[in-house]
Amino acid sequence: MTDVTSRRLQGTGIGRGIAVGQVLRMPDPLPEPDDTPSALTPDAEKERARASLAATAAIIRHRGERAGGSAKDVLEAQAFMAEDPTLIDDVGERLDSGKTAERAVFEAFAAFRDLLVSMGGYMGERATDLDDVSQRVVAHLRGVAAPGVPDPDFAFVLVARDLAPADTALLDLEKVLALVTSDGGPTSHTAILAREKSIVAVVGVADALDLADGTEVIVDASTGTVTVSPTDDERAQALERAEELRSARSADTGPGRLADGTEVPLLANLGSADGAEDALAKGAEGVGLFRTEFLFLDSTSAPTVDEQKAQYVRLLQAFAGKKVVVRALDAGADKPLSFLNDAPEENPALGLRGLRALRANEPILRDQLRALAAADAETDADVWVMAPMVSTVEETRYFTALARECGLKTAGVMVEVPSSALLADRILADADFASIGTNDLTQYTLAADRLLGSVASFQDPWHPAVLKLVGEVGKAGQQLGKPVGICGEAAADPLLAVVLVGLGATTLSMSPAALADVRAELARFTLDDARRFADLALSANSAIEARAAVTAASIS
Amino acid sequence: MTDVTSRRLQGTGIGRGIAVGQVLRMPDPLPEPDDTPSALTPDAEKERARASLAATAAIIRHRGERAGGSAKDVLEAQAFMAEDPTLIDDVGERLDSGKTAERAVFEAFAAFRDLLVSMGGYMGERATDLDDVSQRVVAHLRGVAAPGVPDPDFAFVLVARDLAPADTALLDLEKVLALVTSDGGPTSHTAILAREKSIVAVVGVADALDLADGTEVIVDASTGTVTVSPTDDERAQALERAEELRSARSADTGPGRLADGTEVPLLANLGSADGAEDALAKGAEGVGLFRTEFLFLDSTSAPTVDEQKAQYVRLLQAFAGKKVVVRALDAGADKPLSFLNDAPEENPALGLRGLRALRANEPILRDQLRALAAADAETDADVWVMAPMVSTVEETRYFTALARECGLKTAGVMVEVPSSALLADRILADADFASIGTNDLTQYTLAADRLLGSVASFQDPWHPAVLKLVGEVGKAGQQLGKPVGICGEAAADPLLAVVLVGLGATTLSMSPAALADVRAELARFTLDDARRFADLALSANSAIEARAAVTAASIS
Repeated sequence: MTDVTSRRLQGTGIGRGIAVGQVLRMPDPLPEPDDTPSALTPDAEKERARASLAATAAIIRHRGERAGGSAKDVLEAQAFMAEDPTLIDDVGERLDSGKTAERAVFEAFAAFRDLLVSMGGYMGERATDLDDVSQRVVAHLRGVAAPGVPDPDFAFVLVARDLAPADTALLDLEKVLALVTSDGGPTSHTAILAREKSIVAVVGVADALDLADGTEVIVDASTGTVTVSPTDDERAQALERAEELRSARSADTGPGRLADGTEVPLLANLGSADGAEDALAKGAEGVGLFRTEFLFLDSTSAPTVDEQKAQYVRLLQAFAGKKVVVRALDAGADKPLSFLNDAPEENPALGLRGLRALRANEPILRDQLRALAAADAETDADVWVMAPMVSTVEETRYFTALARECGLKTAGVMVEVPSSALLADRILADADFASIGTNDLTQYTLAADRLLGSVASFQDPWHPAVLKLVGEVGKAGQQLGKPVGICGEAAADPLLAVVLVGLGATTLSMSPAALADVRAELARFTLDDARRFADLALSANSAIEARAAVTAASIS
Repeated sequence: MTDVTSRRLQGTGIGRGIAVGQVLRMPDPLPEPDDTPSALTPDAEKERARASLAATAAIIRHRGERAGGSAKDVLEAQAFMAEDPTLIDDVGERLDSGKTAERAVFEAFAAFRDLLVSMGGYMGERATDLDDVSQRVVAHLRGVAAPGVPDPDFAFVLVARDLAPADTALLDLEKVLALVTSDGGPTSHTAILAREKSIVAVVGVADALDLADGTEVIVDASTGTVTVSPTDDERAQALERAEELRSARSADTGPGRLADGTEVPLLANLGSADGAEDALAKGAEGVGLFRTEFLFLDSTSAPTVDEQKAQYVRLLQAFAGKKVVVRALDAGADKPLSFLNDAPEENPALGLRGLRALRANEPILRDQLRALAAADAETDADVWVMAPMVSTVEETRYFTALARECGLKTAGVMVEVPSSALLADRILADADFASIGTNDLTQYTLAADRLLGSVASFQDPWHPAVLKLVGEVGKAGQQLGKPVGICGEAAADPLLAVVLVGLGATTLSMSPAALADVRAELARFTLDDARRFADLALSANSAIEARAAVTAASIS
């Protein structure tokens, strides 16, 4: 039974998928426990607190073991939080002053949370995990269900404010038809997850939280709409579109090309050699961004040349005969490394990060380049190397000269700072190639922290100012005959990928899961179309207008 | 007696002054006290510590009273630090464990310092003051002279790493012929002080600290050089140049114009109405940037409409018949206000600041605009209002509509985010004018925190990428017939001021002390010259090359 008319909510679509299903909302967090004195003795309250903390740790650990993989690590770390002696002492002190166990746990976790937030960086990001554990302990004390990801025995459309990493670790993705969030933009955690796992998603839907459980919706990422209580016709059309997409995706894993035959190699973003097989199976024509932070993150000192070389050989062997772009260590900002970034910074995103940090620790950079050159000599991939966070011509010359001195043939730079895009003609006179990191480029161009919720609306790579900078790099690349790749989230947005090609991008690199949709979208348009779309986007007043104008043109 | 040959050190000149004199170095900080157990009893050490803390507080307070003005407030705050009961308790605890008073004071202040730094923002900036007090107490305990600004009875060239606000508050500017620093760039505290007070300065001179006390030097800001042990000829030429500059400065306080008669109104940056008289005496043709933060900084809540109006009336009366550009409250980043910015941010410079914060607190913005409109109605100045930290067309429309709704006729925006410069044609289609804040624009374009020492070398408004963005705004202004002002530090650099006019700036606003030098420099060149200089700067590879190319062209 359906209504005669449906209702539409608007947000930002991620990818171009479509899904039909019924809504299940993420439960609301528990209300803050009252600060009324306990009717029990402090000792009795301590016994309650101790029991619930221990039980919560055990439950979380059990879930981690069930989930396995990276979820296990996340949940193991959460279990440790519930067993932290400092926290337990703090709870005890609060109980001595006559509070209830619920209130004491809430306060102690909140105080620790504030401390972590004030420390910023990696520690600050653990604050959400701490909130999650606090909620679970309080729920256990009250004997109510812990808030968290719903786990019904049917497939559903998950509606949430935004998803935390801990939520997604627990999510049974087989059952999630689509994601709809009220907060967050195209680079929120939810959006990144959706792209990585190829889940249909619309984010930033203002009224999403008003949707009642069980409501039927159509989630259409290509238009960014959520159709509430669809008509029979609407449902039928949506299911048909979903089927078309499914067959288009499975039809082809060939090379990326436009409708007129223009080649646009489609590459994979990889964070370790583990993903190589999956990327190749999905048709990656090489690697456009190999992140090397994984080699360094678990260490208190840098890995040796031989340790690094072994990892690079593993990667390069998997991509024999193909292009592999390796990014030098990108430490700093949200990825601090103790042996590289030791000074506290007021604004780490504007600090000594990327190439700046490597240059201040040149032996680490030299080791990495030598390890890569040694791996290159033993394998048959086409190895390119690039520096992160380059902002001047002088830095470009420094890095490319050092890379060549270390024996690497092809050396380029990431363009993720506005100054590099503005001087692309001079930077590409020296660098062999440029690769645009659209996430940071958007963050700096709009001067809005891409990880900060209150300014998330600014973080949209469709913004004409960002596209203008991409166009500057594309133009310089064409004039000088140098390749210009894209390796930010923008390349995984199928329609935006077409626009980027119109602006002069010669390759696109993305999460392997996004390759199929981008490949299919590129095949629908010619280079003339792409350039026309680019002009439309550049002349828009805003990201929203740019996306709308190109979407309209792509349909007509 | 002079050497036959001299030696030159290179740095970045501030302004175009020149001075000859002998070097006095800022004393080095005291070494860290040893952590060896005290030979005295804890009680005896406590008595020593108590006496030195009290004496230091008294000395600092006395100096503050002698200095007067804003120095008094800075020093009064330092005196309170030496009397802080928490700190004194912490010192006592460390003494109980058998440490010396020197070590206990050092450790207690260092611990408090780290806490302040971790809090960031305004509190973080107090860390330097705390170091200064700690050094003074330790010096008093040791019976040695406190490190600090030298105070001889002759004029000298001060050589330092960089100057802290507390140093400059104590500096007898009558005796300082010039400033030379080894650290810091053109927007360091030293550079800002030099511009404000019209002191000859060269900053970022790598080997400056190797200069011995008593060495004779020529400090030439126009070329950024420090000539060590000059020849007789060099000294004579420098003294002649200094005399020429002095007479040029005092010759004229008329309106700003180029050699061909093109008018370039020269305006003042003011932080309160107090500076109005001085600005007018120095020939300011109006106010290009009236900062309104002073109205809010001492409050825990926003001032009322009437309180604000009274201050605006005072300012506008002083500038009757002249243009006055008032900037709406620019809170956030390094200027947090408790009632506006309550959430901790990982990167406050990329956070909810400027117009973003006002928009989230619209009643405060409305009150300010209404207060300004009421003051405008009662006075005869030409009132313009502008929003800080605007990054999109949509924000421009929001602000200008609200300002007009509140009764203000002329509403514009600050351009300090790259996206605003890139979309200047669309922003100026709506805004009545633009004013470019070169400090923040440089910070975001190069993605380098302008207050962070380790990336100070990036903060140079001569960078061709920054000038390219200024040119985009200038071009849009010319096409649409809208004024484009400059109100960042760049406008106070005389030769750069000429370049900015060549890029399309129609007015320049600066510290009143910089007006004379900029006026004299503008009068030397035609608009054609300015445009030629602008082209030279735009085609350079770096800030250093741009400055060198234009300097060479301006001499020939």
